[in-house]
Amino acid sequence: MQRRILTKTAAILAGQIRQSLLQNVPRTTAFKIAISSYSSSSTAKTVPFTADTYSSKVQRDSRYKTLEQSDLDYFHCILPETSIITDKDDLDFFNEDWMRKYKGQSQLVLKPKTTQQVSQILKYCNDHKLAVVPQGGNTGLVGGSNPVFDEVIISLSSMNQIRSFDETSGILKVDAGVILETADQFLAEKGYIFPLDLGAKGSCHIGGNVACNAGGLRLLRYGSLHGSVLGLEAVLPDGTVYDSMHSLRKDNTGYDLKQLFIGSEGTLGIITGVSVLCPARPQASNVAFLAVKDYETVTKVFNECKKELSEILSAFEFMDLKSQILTQQHLGLDQHPIESGQYPFYVLIETSGSNKEHDDEKLETFLGGAMENGLVEDGIIAQDESQIQSLWSWRESIPESSTMNGGVYKYDVSIPLADLYGLVEACNAKLEDAGLVDFTDSSKPVVSAIGYGHIGDGNLHLNVCVREYSQAIESVLEPFVYQWIQQKRGSISAEHGLGFQKKNYIGYSKNEQEIAMIKSIKNHFDPQAIMNPYKYV
Amino acid sequence: MQRRILTKTAAILAGQIRQSLLQNVPRTTAFKIAISSYSSSSTAKTVPFTADTYSSKVQRDSRYKTLEQSDLDYFHCILPETSIITDKDDLDFFNEDWMRKYKGQSQLVLKPKTTQQVSQILKYCNDHKLAVVPQGGNTGLVGGSNPVFDEVIISLSSMNQIRSFDETSGILKVDAGVILETADQFLAEKGYIFPLDLGAKGSCHIGGNVACNAGGLRLLRYGSLHGSVLGLEAVLPDGTVYDSMHSLRKDNTGYDLKQLFIGSEGTLGIITGVSVLCPARPQASNVAFLAVKDYETVTKVFNECKKELSEILSAFEFMDLKSQILTQQHLGLDQHPIESGQYPFYVLIETSGSNKEHDDEKLETFLGGAMENGLVEDGIIAQDESQIQSLWSWRESIPESSTMNGGVYKYDVSIPLADLYGLVEACNAKLEDAGLVDFTDSSKPVVSAIGYGHIGDGNLHLNVCVREYSQAIESVLEPFVYQWIQQKRGSISAEHGLGFQKKNYIGYSKNEQEIAMIKSIKNHFDPQAIMNPYKYV
Repeated sequence: MQRRILTKTAAILAGQIRQSLLQNVPRTTAFKIAISSYSSSSTAKTVPFTADTYSSKVQRDSRYKTLEQSDLDYFHCILPETSIITDKDDLDFFNEDWMRKYKGQSQLVLKPKTTQQVSQILKYCNDHKLAVVPQGGNTGLVGGSNPVFDEVIISLSSMNQIRSFDETSGILKVDAGVILETADQFLAEKGYIFPLDLGAKGSCHIGGNVACNAGGLRLLRYGSLHGSVLGLEAVLPDGTVYDSMHSLRKDNTGYDLKQLFIGSEGTLGIITGVSVLCPARPQASNVAFLAVKDYETVTKVFNECKKELSEILSAFEFMDLKSQILTQQHLGLDQHPIESGQYPFYVLIETSGSNKEHDDEKLETFLGGAMENGLVEDGIIAQDESQIQSLWSWRESIPESSTMNGGVYKYDVSIPLADLYGLVEACNAKLEDAGLVDFTDSSKPVVSAIGYGHIGDGNLHLNVCVREYSQAIESVLEPFVYQWIQQKRGSISAEHGLGFQKKNYIGYSKNEQEIAMIKSIKNHFDPQAIMNPYKYV
Repeated sequence: MQRRILTKTAAILAGQIRQSLLQNVPRTTAFKIAISSYSSSSTAKTVPFTADTYSSKVQRDSRYKTLEQSDLDYFHCILPETSIITDKDDLDFFNEDWMRKYKGQSQLVLKPKTTQQVSQILKYCNDHKLAVVPQGGNTGLVGGSNPVFDEVIISLSSMNQIRSFDETSGILKVDAGVILETADQFLAEKGYIFPLDLGAKGSCHIGGNVACNAGGLRLLRYGSLHGSVLGLEAVLPDGTVYDSMHSLRKDNTGYDLKQLFIGSEGTLGIITGVSVLCPARPQASNVAFLAVKDYETVTKVFNECKKELSEILSAFEFMDLKSQILTQQHLGLDQHPIESGQYPFYVLIETSGSNKEHDDEKLETFLGGAMENGLVEDGIIAQDESQIQSLWSWRESIPESSTMNGGVYKYDVSIPLADLYGLVEACNAKLEDAGLVDFTDSSKPVVSAIGYGHIGDGNLHLNVCVREYSQAIESVLEPFVYQWIQQKRGSISAEHGLGFQKKNYIGYSKNEQEIAMIKSIKNHFDPQAIMNPYKYV
């Protein structure tokens, strides 16, 4: 598929690369696993109610009112018929998360079309103590956008208009329910790029991205949403509209309150509009895919990369072997991009710049040097846009691939770089000790813990791929995973948020004073506590 | 000093540049002003008390206690002798701002050496209702770090240690009182760069930079402090230490409360420590200095620059002719970098990248094209580090040069790009109508309004250079300037903050709901209102 770089690099370096690198490296026997031996179990079974699965941990708060006909009557007064969903089958889509791990029992989904309607809904709910769950594209990974009990779901999917775009400044203003990919395609036509990219881009909403402070694949290059979001419109629990849709790159007039909503996961109010600064779309992009012999070497490749590729480096992703085996099976492809054998680790490097010739020269020089120094075992560079997309699919398909045997426990964590992969190894050892894990034996409930993620951000995705969800697995993993992270002074949620899954574990990443201040701010904005209860903090 | 690029560019473009560009362009007669005719008045006169100058606008709040011997006794118990300043002459340095526009009447400066001491001081002041002013390098431009009446000054200058630096991640942790330039020099030795740079770097403190959300010269490249600050340590008004000195690029566990302190100007607590992500220091830098015929063309040059230089563009600064004439006089130099004549506008472009050859090629190609298209009248590229520094001095010396005739009214504002320079023209017209302005006639109180700043950020520095401060000038300028900005939907403070100067004008940039929420957060954190009173909001 992709042309090997070895020949070209060898030519550039005029024979400086050791001859041995031009030959196939023997397969790393420890990872020699026959792909054909997997079972591919179905994921179509019924999802149990969160309230049942976690009945020992969470009880319905009796302060909240139960939905009555009079409430429905009110909503029918302020919303058109098409904005109100009460049909049982239709509700499932909104009650369940995409991992099929959490399921709420809401009897009502509201799909407002305007900020004013959101305001009317929240004011009513606040006055009547009806708990609510704001929901974007429902692509969250911690059960944050699904009800736990009977909360009213407020879906932003009908607020999906691009409000404006300024071609000089690159400032885009959108409704919260605009799908990320839709916005990026719109921007592509104008020569701009959305400063965020992630696997769920075809479904996730920009409002949801901001509410969860999504990090994704471009953070290394374009920074976090705390930097690129210039303004927000949000409705507070009492129905007040906080209109702060500014379009200024610099504005030091008062506390930057919009920052509180970025990453608040729908607990302070509902984001209805976003103003975001978009960079010029790079005129040249390229992707290299490398094989690396061990984790320590992955970090060395990263450090070299930062120095040599510097301003054109736009992504540095790593993947372990098992993540690639699962992905290959899921994609149903005969060949992996690296054909010379299996290697413990793979790295995807993306460059983005203004001059293709310069960028390719930098990338090839870097790879040539890295191979010469023994940092890289094998590698390829994409030759065109379709090859770039194809290489990316080996990284972006991992989340889906990791659920193919039945389900996945997902941990999205930050750990100082040197220790980052140690968590995956520790989890596999722990599951091994408990006799729960086997990569091929389908009688064991766990397939494997796999690791991949954004090395450039110190962000590991630990996916524990399972054949079924069970309390036995969960009790081996938690709080073990969180304790391990705490010891390394990491974060138990790098980018996925706290949601329902991690609500009780924030103490592993934040101290008492921080938690007290967070609770106090929550109470300041939402004294009736109607916003997304049973979650966050 | 700098080698002309014309020959080199001409060679590259093989005769594509129009011959006329190789000749001197005639001086723009409207700006033909004899440098020798200036008066250079002294700035050594006494600064009047802010309380007197603005007696009609602000009264001392009687809720605050007046300093007594018992208070001094307490501070002597918890601090060493050298941390307490009560000598009248020594106090002046802390009471006055560097523009010599504001002067407080504090009788006490405390210079704690530890976070614990800051905590003890604030707890005492909060319990006894002693108002305080936190002070960093005292380089602020809106009177935010000086007392208005008799507030106790808490200077962070004795908390000046670099706490740690991680060479793999580039994360620097410092005491709030570390001077920006000291940190950047420390980082230079490690191959890293501080993500913020500004004219006052030799004096300003990092804690003060964060408290004011300083933008500066590198924002275009490295983004705002809301993105690069990873953690903070701050002491709350009641003495509680908020220890949030994290070192993770991604951490989505709870509201990002540190963001509230970024840009809070000492009104919520005192920042005592900062954790900041520092990028790898570019291996290659260059600077070009261009002459441009009008403001509209400046914006066109910027748009071309964004496209062609993209990832290596690290600064795009513009300056008008009068700012350069004043700077030339202030620097005492015979020659301006552009020797071929005077032009209405000048632009400084900085590139930073990993490959000097690639960067220089991009810069030269860009300039060649810009001259061919008639966007640029004349231009030079620095040939070595000392020339880079020298070219930068023509931009960085403007703030000092603007005070050389007596004083300056500074406005730091954000305005959509197309209208940005219109404010300078509108101010000069307004001052002209009032008969207050003449560039050469020293009997008039105003020299001129001049404009310069960070085009890349939509950030104009409007400096009204005066021979003396007067209410007559101020009443012509305010609220006129703020009203003009409001009409254009800009910000009355892009990066300098609100401080004392702009406290009453926030309504020109924020709506009632935003202001109400800001006031409510202030009250939430500082119910006794001891922190930096009479300012901000």
